[in-house]
Amino acid sequence: MAQILDGKVVAAALTEQLKNDVQKLKDRGVFPCLAIVRVGERGDDLAYERGATKRAAAAGLEVKQFALPAEASQDELLAVIAKINADASIHGCLIFMPLPKQIDEAAVRAALAPEKDVDGITAASQAGVYSDKSVGFPPCTPSACMEIIKHYQIELKGANAVVFGRSLVVGRPLAMMLLGQHATVTICHTKTRDAAAVARGADVLLAAVGHAGAVGETFVTPDQVLIDVGINVNAEGKLCGDVAPEAAQKARAYTPVPGGVGSVTTTVLAKHVIEAARRTLD
Amino acid sequence: MAQILDGKVVAAALTEQLKNDVQKLKDRGVFPCLAIVRVGERGDDLAYERGATKRAAAAGLEVKQFALPAEASQDELLAVIAKINADASIHGCLIFMPLPKQIDEAAVRAALAPEKDVDGITAASQAGVYSDKSVGFPPCTPSACMEIIKHYQIELKGANAVVFGRSLVVGRPLAMMLLGQHATVTICHTKTRDAAAVARGADVLLAAVGHAGAVGETFVTPDQVLIDVGINVNAEGKLCGDVAPEAAQKARAYTPVPGGVGSVTTTVLAKHVIEAARRTLD
Repeated sequence: MAQILDGKVVAAALTEQLKNDVQKLKDRGVFPCLAIVRVGERGDDLAYERGATKRAAAAGLEVKQFALPAEASQDELLAVIAKINADASIHGCLIFMPLPKQIDEAAVRAALAPEKDVDGITAASQAGVYSDKSVGFPPCTPSACMEIIKHYQIELKGANAVVFGRSLVVGRPLAMMLLGQHATVTICHTKTRDAAAVARGADVLLAAVGHAGAVGETFVTPDQVLIDVGINVNAEGKLCGDVAPEAAQKARAYTPVPGGVGSVTTTVLAKHVIEAARRTLD
Repeated sequence: MAQILDGKVVAAALTEQLKNDVQKLKDRGVFPCLAIVRVGERGDDLAYERGATKRAAAAGLEVKQFALPAEASQDELLAVIAKINADASIHGCLIFMPLPKQIDEAAVRAALAPEKDVDGITAASQAGVYSDKSVGFPPCTPSACMEIIKHYQIELKGANAVVFGRSLVVGRPLAMMLLGQHATVTICHTKTRDAAAVARGADVLLAAVGHAGAVGETFVTPDQVLIDVGINVNAEGKLCGDVAPEAAQKARAYTPVPGGVGSVTTTVLAKHVIEAARRTLD
């Protein structure tokens, strides 16, 4: 019977730790604060905002919401970001993407102060995760994968980690973070020849493909740990990951969807804000 | 008998192509120019400078030398860089590293204008190579590997590429560039378990380890292409790569040391300068 790597358990344990970290900062006069910038009222964004706000409050953070109408101009959004950059009481900033068509996303990414970039959208954060330096932050999703691995004490040093997906939001930063923990890292994608064979060589298999059942039973061995980043809707209309159910059962351990990686991302966001606040004391 | 992937042949062919590119730019009134900044008189730097200057001239580039004494202060060096940044007639800038102890290398990296960073030392270039965007440039050595692969038409799409080494100067940028060409990329290092077995799974094996004989005969299969980035001195005092001679002979093809990757880097530097000059027209 495969072990379930429970995201809710990881989030709860991490929240306890963060509460301590926040208290220590408050004792030094620093009150960690997250700004959330949303343009429009997309259901996904609103749901994530509720989750992030709840998590942030649980850890003792303050949250400031900046909601702009869907038809907001680029200049209006840039003005909000400039205000956040200049506000020393705000330590981290989450901007929901994608942005409406009238707004140039690249300009928005370039506008945010790297030290407040708690979801890894700036070039400075990208260079930071690539070069393994504490500049900016990686995106929250790959950080959430690493938190699960850490919580369940899954050994990475010398392990073969295989990442499916090469996006800037998950695959690439995940590969860099696994490398930072001394795993031997393989990055696979749609052009990979015999993906199942490559996957079977993994001690830890991380799937960020984006379609249901992409990781089938032939990909998995009984010694493997599966980290499933996919969030898909299956034929029955239910939420599911990239890993097929029979594949998950075959492994040593796996993260369920829902209740796995996705349950940790908002807590990681809070963690990044606290770290951003702590860095202001350096 | 293994095929030799001859760096001098690649450099000569690339130089012919660059001469055309330079002529096209000159026809449009742009005269590509490289600045070389050297602090002190290290033998390695002087040798590279001579090579780079010769190559640049062969491609039709102008070169401006900025030589500072070994005891130059950080402010003196930063003043030279500021001058280069401000000079529209200079398109690319090579700064020899490592710098003397009295100079903060991070400050120097941060000072160079990313658009003139033809050897990939700035955070902007790092983010560019990581995100596969045309911002700055990768370091010349991994670019030289890619030129050899391209010249000899070694198929990367869907191929298994294994990179030994995870440095910011070679391993990491090489992994990203191979990924950009749709290879399945594995990054190995000192903590890799059974490196020989991982290596044998490669169609293209790229060694940037930094010690002679690191890639032994058991790493290699007869179908493999070996790209050897190492420049070491062996027990007999001779220049050699990371790949043991008997391992190279076992492969389908290999880059010799000397005469392989190292023979292409200065030509790649010229290529980057020309591309930097071309971008000023965008």
